[in-house]
Amino acid sequence: MVEARVRVIYGDTDQMGVVYYANYFRYFELARSDYFRASGGSYREVEKEGRMLPVVEASCHYRAPARYDDVLVVRAEVTEVRGASLTFTYEVRRESDGEVLCTGLTRHACVRRDGRPTRIPDEIVKLLAPR
Amino acid sequence: MVEARVRVIYGDTDQMGVVYYANYFRYFELARSDYFRASGGSYREVEKEGRMLPVVEASCHYRAPARYDDVLVVRAEVTEVRGASLTFTYEVRRESDGEVLCTGLTRHACVRRDGRPTRIPDEIVKLLAPR
Amino acid sequence: MVEARVRVIYGDTDQMGVVYYANYFRYFELARSDYFRASGGSYREVEKEGRMLPVVEASCHYRAPARYDDVLVVRAEVTEVRGASLTFTYEVRRESDGEVLCTGLTRHACVRRDGRPTRIPDEIVKLLAPR
Amino acid sequence: MVEARVRVIYGDTDQMGVVYYANYFRYFELARSDYFRASGGSYREVEKEGRMLPVVEASCHYRAPARYDDVLVVRAEVTEVRGASLTFTYEVRRESDGEVLCTGLTRHACVRRDGRPTRIPDEIVKLLAPR
Repeated sequence: MVEARVRVIYGDTDQMGVVYYANYFRYFELARSDYFRASGGSYREVEKEGRMLPVVEASCHYRAPARYDDVLVVRAEVTEVRGASLTFTYEVRRESDGEVLCTGLTRHACVRRDGRPTRIPDEIVKLLAPR
Repeated sequence: MVEARVRVIYGDTDQMGVVYYANYFRYFELARSDYFRASGGSYREVEKEGRMLPVVEASCHYRAPARYDDVLVVRAEVTEVRGASLTFTYEVRRESDGEVLCTGLTRHACVRRDGRPTRIPDEIVKLLAPR
Repeated sequence: MVEARVRVIYGDTDQMGVVYYANYFRYFELARSDYFRASGGSYREVEKEGRMLPVVEASCHYRAPARYDDVLVVRAEVTEVRGASLTFTYEVRRESDGEVLCTGLTRHACVRRDGRPTRIPDEIVKLLAPR
Repeated sequence: MVEARVRVIYGDTDQMGVVYYANYFRYFELARSDYFRASGGSYREVEKEGRMLPVVEASCHYRAPARYDDVLVVRAEVTEVRGASLTFTYEVRRESDGEVLCTGLTRHACVRRDGRPTRIPDEIVKLLAPR
């Protein structure tokens, strides 16, 4: 489990005064890339292994809005690794009061450079081990 | 059912050379707002009625990547209207060959200005009727 | 001179209720890519020639705000072509009343795949001729 | 002078493999809002004073590209405060090697809620004092 922090800027909000719904998926990615780094690696290394992990499914449940200047704590963890796919789940909380603002997931395929699905190599599985 | 068209710009792509996964939710919004317009209305009128339709859930299944310069056809329709919530479903196709690139949905609550859930007013239900 | 049309979505606005300042540069790109298409070409062809036109300078003067649901008319034209660089200028108007909302420019270098500056090839100059 | 740090995500890059040119203006905003916070305040307080500081001009000179996973150091400082306007200048460096990737500026008007220009109140000038 890894926690990334991000401060909401004007550019993340919309005219309702809250973070635009699509932007939470950017926060998810931020935490996801921190997850790889936390194991001493980086998503760059996945690419060096000749593999990519494109998103094949993404979803988010919105409970309460984030606002300008809020510091968000974005928790990411790998909750499933199968032969050729893996799942990250996320939780976004407001740092000041700990309120959970949304939860979500992304499911990824493991593919070669030519786009064909392939088993996740052991080197990458190590980067994904639960922590 | 309404179809919006959008051309993929550089700013929509990422370094994999494909549209970044979060951006499809922007395309969904584009088609959603066209949906309101197609009934002679606008989401602005929803707000004038003192109602808002914040997204409470969003999801997308990605099948094939969209690329720079592709023209995308984004189909939106309302597939469920209940007392205080409604669901849009989406399909994104590449115009040139008709390939379905992704499908998705957004679920919306109907709330008053103070954020409390409320029955969707008849004036808004009319804007949402199947077509 | 080429005119692109774009409708402002929620995702383009910020909590001031107006289009976020960085997003005008996305609109500029939209019109810029239409400019190439208008000459029967595409920026893709520039890349096929083994050239790229990265932005080396960008600026925008904001006069009046664009709002949700506005249709914007984005005019682009090439105002200078020199050996290894070219300049696009832009004007964004609201379609409903013709008000000029901002003006801007982008200056581009012509580089090879290895990043070295190079004279703009004649095939590309043709795509850029005043119209 | 204030320095903000930001790590480049996939969503910030484009298919050239570098940060999309419009996104630097988002980084500028991040550093700008840190600038207010560094004086013990926040841009929120500017708004509480009934003032807004909309951007009236923005520009950026791009020298070298930022890439995925780079940590960027974004320096912001107020370089001019006049009666009803102020200027921020920015410099973005890559943290790993210190290379300057771009420089830029934003000029802001000080306006009341009704949009009319007004002298910058002393409370706000204090937040902007050179440091």
